[in-house]
Amino acid sequence: MSDNTKFLLDESKLPKAWYNINADMPVPPEPVLNPQTLEPVTPDFLSVLFPMSLIMQEISTEAQIEIPEPVREIYKLWRPTPMFRARRLEKALDTPAHIYYKYEGASPVGSHKPNTAVPQAFYNKEAGTKALTTETGAGQWGSALAMACNYFGLDLEVYMVKVSYNQKPYRRMVIESYGAEVYASPTDRTNYGRSVLAEHPDSPGSLGIAISEAVEVAATSGGAKKYSLGSVLNHVLMHQTVIGEETLLQMEMAGEYPDVIVACTGGGSNFGGFAFPFVRENLRNGKNTTIIAAEPAASPSLTRGTYAFDYGDTAKMAPVVKMHTLGHSFVPPAIHAGGLRYHGMSPQVSALVNNGDVQARAVPQLETFEAAITFLRSEGIIPAPESTHAIAVALQEARKCKETGEKKVIAFNLSGHGHFDMAAYDAYLKGQLEDYEYPAEAIAEAMTQLPQVGG
Amino acid sequence: MSDNTKFLLDESKLPKAWYNINADMPVPPEPVLNPQTLEPVTPDFLSVLFPMSLIMQEISTEAQIEIPEPVREIYKLWRPTPMFRARRLEKALDTPAHIYYKYEGASPVGSHKPNTAVPQAFYNKEAGTKALTTETGAGQWGSALAMACNYFGLDLEVYMVKVSYNQKPYRRMVIESYGAEVYASPTDRTNYGRSVLAEHPDSPGSLGIAISEAVEVAATSGGAKKYSLGSVLNHVLMHQTVIGEETLLQMEMAGEYPDVIVACTGGGSNFGGFAFPFVRENLRNGKNTTIIAAEPAASPSLTRGTYAFDYGDTAKMAPVVKMHTLGHSFVPPAIHAGGLRYHGMSPQVSALVNNGDVQARAVPQLETFEAAITFLRSEGIIPAPESTHAIAVALQEARKCKETGEKKVIAFNLSGHGHFDMAAYDAYLKGQLEDYEYPAEAIAEAMTQLPQVGG
Repeated sequence: MSDNTKFLLDESKLPKAWYNINADMPVPPEPVLNPQTLEPVTPDFLSVLFPMSLIMQEISTEAQIEIPEPVREIYKLWRPTPMFRARRLEKALDTPAHIYYKYEGASPVGSHKPNTAVPQAFYNKEAGTKALTTETGAGQWGSALAMACNYFGLDLEVYMVKVSYNQKPYRRMVIESYGAEVYASPTDRTNYGRSVLAEHPDSPGSLGIAISEAVEVAATSGGAKKYSLGSVLNHVLMHQTVIGEETLLQMEMAGEYPDVIVACTGGGSNFGGFAFPFVRENLRNGKNTTIIAAEPAASPSLTRGTYAFDYGDTAKMAPVVKMHTLGHSFVPPAIHAGGLRYHGMSPQVSALVNNGDVQARAVPQLETFEAAITFLRSEGIIPAPESTHAIAVALQEARKCKETGEKKVIAFNLSGHGHFDMAAYDAYLKGQLEDYEYPAEAIAEAMTQLPQVGG
Repeated sequence: MSDNTKFLLDESKLPKAWYNINADMPVPPEPVLNPQTLEPVTPDFLSVLFPMSLIMQEISTEAQIEIPEPVREIYKLWRPTPMFRARRLEKALDTPAHIYYKYEGASPVGSHKPNTAVPQAFYNKEAGTKALTTETGAGQWGSALAMACNYFGLDLEVYMVKVSYNQKPYRRMVIESYGAEVYASPTDRTNYGRSVLAEHPDSPGSLGIAISEAVEVAATSGGAKKYSLGSVLNHVLMHQTVIGEETLLQMEMAGEYPDVIVACTGGGSNFGGFAFPFVRENLRNGKNTTIIAAEPAASPSLTRGTYAFDYGDTAKMAPVVKMHTLGHSFVPPAIHAGGLRYHGMSPQVSALVNNGDVQARAVPQLETFEAAITFLRSEGIIPAPESTHAIAVALQEARKCKETGEKKVIAFNLSGHGHFDMAAYDAYLKGQLEDYEYPAEAIAEAMTQLPQVGG
């Protein structure tokens, strides 16, 4: 066991390949369906939105996909990211557990999102794409893709959920500083946006609406523009596995192996990126790590949603996949300060939870901010409201160890910093945040609107 | 020459001692004067504000001052910080120069300021201090000291310049998240603050006023509270020399030695911390690096101020030192977006500039933001508005190399990130910023108010 605080990897240790969980899934994958026909999609349907290289990655069953050299060169601006032993946090909790965290906030935009933004921009550039469209909620994904598009000379249109556009102007400014265009969604630039505005002129927007707008712009561009998604899909989660692969090397440097790992999950990209290499070690190499996906109690797709086929967006233009879902019409409560607001979940993460390979745990909002304050006053770093969910579960586990006396090794992914989310901390410190439980009737009602697949 | 992008040092390479430039100053130091008597201060006068250990550091002429182990333990949360070769920036500029930058934004609060905040909190704790007072402009220093006081269980009152308190709420929230109290200065908590408000009820505040308030609270606390300063003084600059010492080791890893180094300068702590170890190499070890202090054209103490004795604050309560000054009544123009707004300058930096060991260069605001955009679209990181001054000068030097064909090695200090300063970027991108030249008559007028020292 090393007595270091930080575990740094040299650039030579930057992974040369992404890990594709499709190769090791303990259950066969469900097909992706066309939203109009509800029949399995053809590559042609997907190729309106994505370049063929990413579609092939989406359906690949190869365990290792080589990372192109131009992508690795950009990764080197911030990767490998550091892993820390949280010695001060352990002391503050008076726990015998050893707590480690991988820090993805070290990227220029402050989150794990560039890990997939960069290869998505690269493959699009290679395929001749001129411009990308995407949606963003709090703005982490939008700023990551803006940085990536800037590196490859691609134009970018970002449809930003209106309430975030207004409440989080700093993220909008970050996106613009990299040269991208940002629109407050719903906009009047799309048929779908106009239809929403006609019915709800004051609509605050939602991730589902913004996705629909970005998809519509790409789908109706005659091939000039493609669409880019920051989570949920297999190729997105795969690009993120550099996180877990590096962590495995860093745990080796630390001379320990985790008994428990935790990551937060909204669409699943941060969770999959951190956890899938550990899932592989469990499934293939005899390890026995407890793997926990931490989600918000206000947006509990894994713990209270249904594992079923559902649309990826509100307008039913995006593909239909089998996943844990709260229903495509889900709008998270306004009281919920953090990110992780998507109605669905990565199909791979959903299948692993359904199969018992991954545990899911929902955390109430106040507990996550309480954990964040304990963390930042021990370790210094101010966590993103998304990452606080992983911290809260890590703290639950560390406190259990205090009770039982077990010296468990706990590792979590700190997916980003909270520099652009200080208003949420301010609200918490002023006592303005509340816990919220999504009403069971609302979920039941949404379930009646799921597409009727098969028979 | 290494082909790395990042140069990372292991924790074992964290410096064990700070470098004290007093040991090598090519000119004898000028005395620090009592603001009432204008006679050299006694340690008793200073001990109202500072613990004796820091006063001894202030006047020490030892070249090496050992870093206490509890301070090194906290440094390890983010130190050693990375040094980068700016390969993409070099390509964007099409320059034969090699450009390196040290990145101090890697600290939890995003700037170099914790390097001195942590030891100042440590020495105060050791001396039995219960609470600290300080001022902050944009909030970088306040957040650093808040983090440090939290680690040592000290209370903290931060007097934040009112215009920043209102315009930069995120920094205020960061300070509060570490548990400190923040007041918009001028306040009604001090005699001086009340006197300012009586005359100017709408005063936006200034760094000079905030210093006066923080000094007054400490000086009238009967010993319970001490005052902490984030720049200017020798012990502060000395604590920052971990930056330059690490950079020397990292340049060795890179297999090069800088021909030119640049850092921005307001009070001088980031500049001194980066540059003093290189000054030592020039003075003692036969190196011949060009050392440039980059300052804002809107607050040009080194290039347009006078080298003279002046008060450290507006209320004439802080010690009088010989330095480059724009006059203690200086208020920077509202149009100036960045930090670096202090009227004076570190006495050590001033003496080195006066002696020709360090060059000073003023940069107009628009050029700094233009340089920042070039930088961030190449290297990803969004620089703090202070750091942009160093980037602008580094770009000037790199472009000269393009003209002359010289392959100079240029290194600069990126003292922090701009995550809390996005409004300044927004204003720049919208064309709302202007250049500003401080009127010569205003400076001449301020010079008539300097204290009359000696005879």
